[in-house]
Amino acid sequence: MLVILSAPSGCGKDTVLAELFNRAGWLKRSISLTTRQKREGEKDGEDYYFVSREYFQSKLESGQILEHTSYSGNYYGTPKTTVDEWLKQGETVILKIEVEGAVKIKELYPDAVSIFLVPPAMSELETRLRQRMSEGEEEIQSRLTIAVNEMKNAVNYDYIVVNEDLGRAVDDVYAIIISERHRTSRSMHILNEAMTF
Amino acid sequence: MLVILSAPSGCGKDTVLAELFNRAGWLKRSISLTTRQKREGEKDGEDYYFVSREYFQSKLESGQILEHTSYSGNYYGTPKTTVDEWLKQGETVILKIEVEGAVKIKELYPDAVSIFLVPPAMSELETRLRQRMSEGEEEIQSRLTIAVNEMKNAVNYDYIVVNEDLGRAVDDVYAIIISERHRTSRSMHILNEAMTF
Repeated sequence: MLVILSAPSGCGKDTVLAELFNRAGWLKRSISLTTRQKREGEKDGEDYYFVSREYFQSKLESGQILEHTSYSGNYYGTPKTTVDEWLKQGETVILKIEVEGAVKIKELYPDAVSIFLVPPAMSELETRLRQRMSEGEEEIQSRLTIAVNEMKNAVNYDYIVVNEDLGRAVDDVYAIIISERHRTSRSMHILNEAMTF
Repeated sequence: MLVILSAPSGCGKDTVLAELFNRAGWLKRSISLTTRQKREGEKDGEDYYFVSREYFQSKLESGQILEHTSYSGNYYGTPKTTVDEWLKQGETVILKIEVEGAVKIKELYPDAVSIFLVPPAMSELETRLRQRMSEGEEEIQSRLTIAVNEMKNAVNYDYIVVNEDLGRAVDDVYAIIISERHRTSRSMHILNEAMTF
């Protein structure tokens, strides 16, 4: 089962995911490729696979990147082979992905379950962005505008989860994953077993 | 939100429900009307509303019974008014219902979430029915045949939950309820709030 998680920047997506993987070690996390420089504290193969522009380009051309985006002149992409291998093994794979990428993934994997994480209110998102202190006023306003535009796409996702309280948000995402594993369309083998004498 | 729970007889539906209501006191349980005699230990307004045949008939004729069935010459029915009142208040209402009734309810409430509880295997169901000791061989075989026929209808339900381990089955049903409350179609108000400055 493929699970897509999207959220506006500053919504705490990474914290929710980290907590989710803590709780459910059996979940598989797809790690993106990026051509950007590794930042301090980041680990290759954990935060990203840090690759060269040439390597990324070759993977892209051979169809081994599911979806990609570029930001500040760097590429970010989701590797296809790992995801497909996991899905074939019946694993539950989580993709942290931008709104545009999510649309693409839904086309390729119509059964994918999509979750959109939202802040309780824009004022809350504004506060969180300001607390980070790293962005200037212009950057904050720009991110808020982008966030509203991204949230307009949330109607195309299957589920909406509010990240007001971290523990609660993780509970909710976890419940959605457990629930979707019990969908009848995914449980035909269990039903057949149950009907066997 | 309306939740329909069905299961073949002997599958532990009542135990799962009792445990579920213990865990989530906010869930509303629809109590059926019946014209049969109250058995020892049963409480009026808790196990059933024990009513006269005339009363049941009058409720049926005035359209106040959502669905009904008869078994051994007695009527069993789901009262409409209470369910509609709860749904109007935004409550989550659980209906324990037979397969035939469930189809009827899905027609009346297309948004209803339906869950089918199955045993891990028919042999397990057989063992459970035998352990009850109350039924004779013929009755047990008849119930097993009915169970298989009922389970064929499980494909029309939204979710399948196996009742192998009670705690796990309750966890699963609970996760489905929490998850469905986050469906985008049921979360538009939350999304609108999130987009407000």
